[in-house]
Amino acid sequence: MSQLRFHHLLLLRNSRRPPSFPFSSSTKTTPLLSLFGSTPRSGTMAAYSTVAEAPRLLLRQLFEKESSTYTYLLADVGHPDKPAMLVDPVDKTVDRDLTLVKELGLKLIYALNTHVHADHVTGTGLIKGKMPGVKSVISKSSNAKADLLVEHGDNIYFGNLFLEVRATPGHTMGCVTYVTGDGSDQPHPRMAFTGDALLIRGCGRTDFQGGSSHQLYQSVHSQIFSLPKDTLLYPAHDYKGFTVTTVGEEMLYNPRLTKDEETFQSIMENLNLSYPKMMAVAVPANLACGLQDLNAKV
Amino acid sequence: MSQLRFHHLLLLRNSRRPPSFPFSSSTKTTPLLSLFGSTPRSGTMAAYSTVAEAPRLLLRQLFEKESSTYTYLLADVGHPDKPAMLVDPVDKTVDRDLTLVKELGLKLIYALNTHVHADHVTGTGLIKGKMPGVKSVISKSSNAKADLLVEHGDNIYFGNLFLEVRATPGHTMGCVTYVTGDGSDQPHPRMAFTGDALLIRGCGRTDFQGGSSHQLYQSVHSQIFSLPKDTLLYPAHDYKGFTVTTVGEEMLYNPRLTKDEETFQSIMENLNLSYPKMMAVAVPANLACGLQDLNAKV
Repeated sequence: MSQLRFHHLLLLRNSRRPPSFPFSSSTKTTPLLSLFGSTPRSGTMAAYSTVAEAPRLLLRQLFEKESSTYTYLLADVGHPDKPAMLVDPVDKTVDRDLTLVKELGLKLIYALNTHVHADHVTGTGLIKGKMPGVKSVISKSSNAKADLLVEHGDNIYFGNLFLEVRATPGHTMGCVTYVTGDGSDQPHPRMAFTGDALLIRGCGRTDFQGGSSHQLYQSVHSQIFSLPKDTLLYPAHDYKGFTVTTVGEEMLYNPRLTKDEETFQSIMENLNLSYPKMMAVAVPANLACGLQDLNAKV
Repeated sequence: MSQLRFHHLLLLRNSRRPPSFPFSSSTKTTPLLSLFGSTPRSGTMAAYSTVAEAPRLLLRQLFEKESSTYTYLLADVGHPDKPAMLVDPVDKTVDRDLTLVKELGLKLIYALNTHVHADHVTGTGLIKGKMPGVKSVISKSSNAKADLLVEHGDNIYFGNLFLEVRATPGHTMGCVTYVTGDGSDQPHPRMAFTGDALLIRGCGRTDFQGGSSHQLYQSVHSQIFSLPKDTLLYPAHDYKGFTVTTVGEEMLYNPRLTKDEETFQSIMENLNLSYPKMMAVAVPANLACGLQDLNAKV
């Protein structure tokens, strides 16, 4: 395996694990490195002697109007190959996103989902159809198919930057939050891509797909509100035109999650929302996270 | 005048002027400090001995769906009073924006417009009605009314951060681009709020309000493309879900402004766009930039 692949396709258990998650029934410690035939790295610092520049994050927030979804493009532009990933791509905006990837000279290696979305079809399948080298990523607990199934505590590397996987179920049973790494060589302030677990001054609904208001409350408080207060929170959706928030802000002003758990559960159980229009199409499609479209082409 | 006001309401001619602008018929050098009864500062560095923390930019990008307008909230959160400004606020989202200002503990001092908008009514008037201390700002060349009329080369201070005013006419005769300051104590990379002069992979139309495709071409090339290539460009609108671009990207990929001037003019003269729906309401309202609503209440 070339040095290039070593840097691009490294997915590794976190040596500095995030706060423990109360709903993990067990924690596997088997390295995922065998997926790529590489040798384990003992720690993040060890890798830096092999690259020319310090890791440097490029972040682009992209909006899909119909479902009010945010897609995030991240890349390590300090790395010679500019390895990149897309978080929560939408099928309707795949061409826009891949054009941008190309124009910025990035090498897309991963298409991640924070969870099995019910309101739009993931762009993962279309991306893999157009760029077969890209690996789809989703949590193992989502019960969806993908090239890589991640779990709480995993780190997903792109160049010398990485995202830490934190299990944040409650909106769905398989929701995760991807958090930029903890370390002096990783972005400051930290950034968390919260999916639908935490929205700006809101949160995802908890009434289907294995949702649980009890779990969501615990997830946000133990996995997101435990991050430094200046951590930038980037959700999968916004309906009011906000683009970003912080842990400190949501701890003070989130109208649901600042309440005690009992009040939160009562709020969530009385939302009386209709089901998403796209749900019957989106959920089955998204359970085959990025693999269905590929199979259809074969 | 207290020290607080000295920091908050300082508007000053730039000692480091931006590249000269080809359409300025004359350049006034009278300091605007007399507006606030303060004494002139000889340079930006002189002010820092009086504050506890280094300047630190808070930036929030806010979206208004109906007109696809971006409003920007900027603040110096390193300054004890967190002085803030809103760039291109929209009337429909004023309550959202002012709630955010309050929650973040900011002191809003300015509401700026990049130009007289034709597609939405500025929020400036409503803001001044709710917060009478806020000053409205627009360019003198817009021929609009406002508390402060700025010109090419002016610096607009908020705390120890400032925006440099660059005349970028062509979409309208009074368009300006606000650029974060040049200096080791100012944000890196620099950021430019381009209004409709430059959009992401596009630009504003040039067929009304004193528009000129010749002027716009010169404006973008002399005032925006002359900034460092990593300068982040934040436009007043986006219709495809992009949030930000850079000088380097637009110099390579802007489908209009990478062309020679003759081709650019031909493109702009053949767009055949209908007039904005809101134009008959928006333009007269916006010409009284923030003063009309206030008068209506008296």
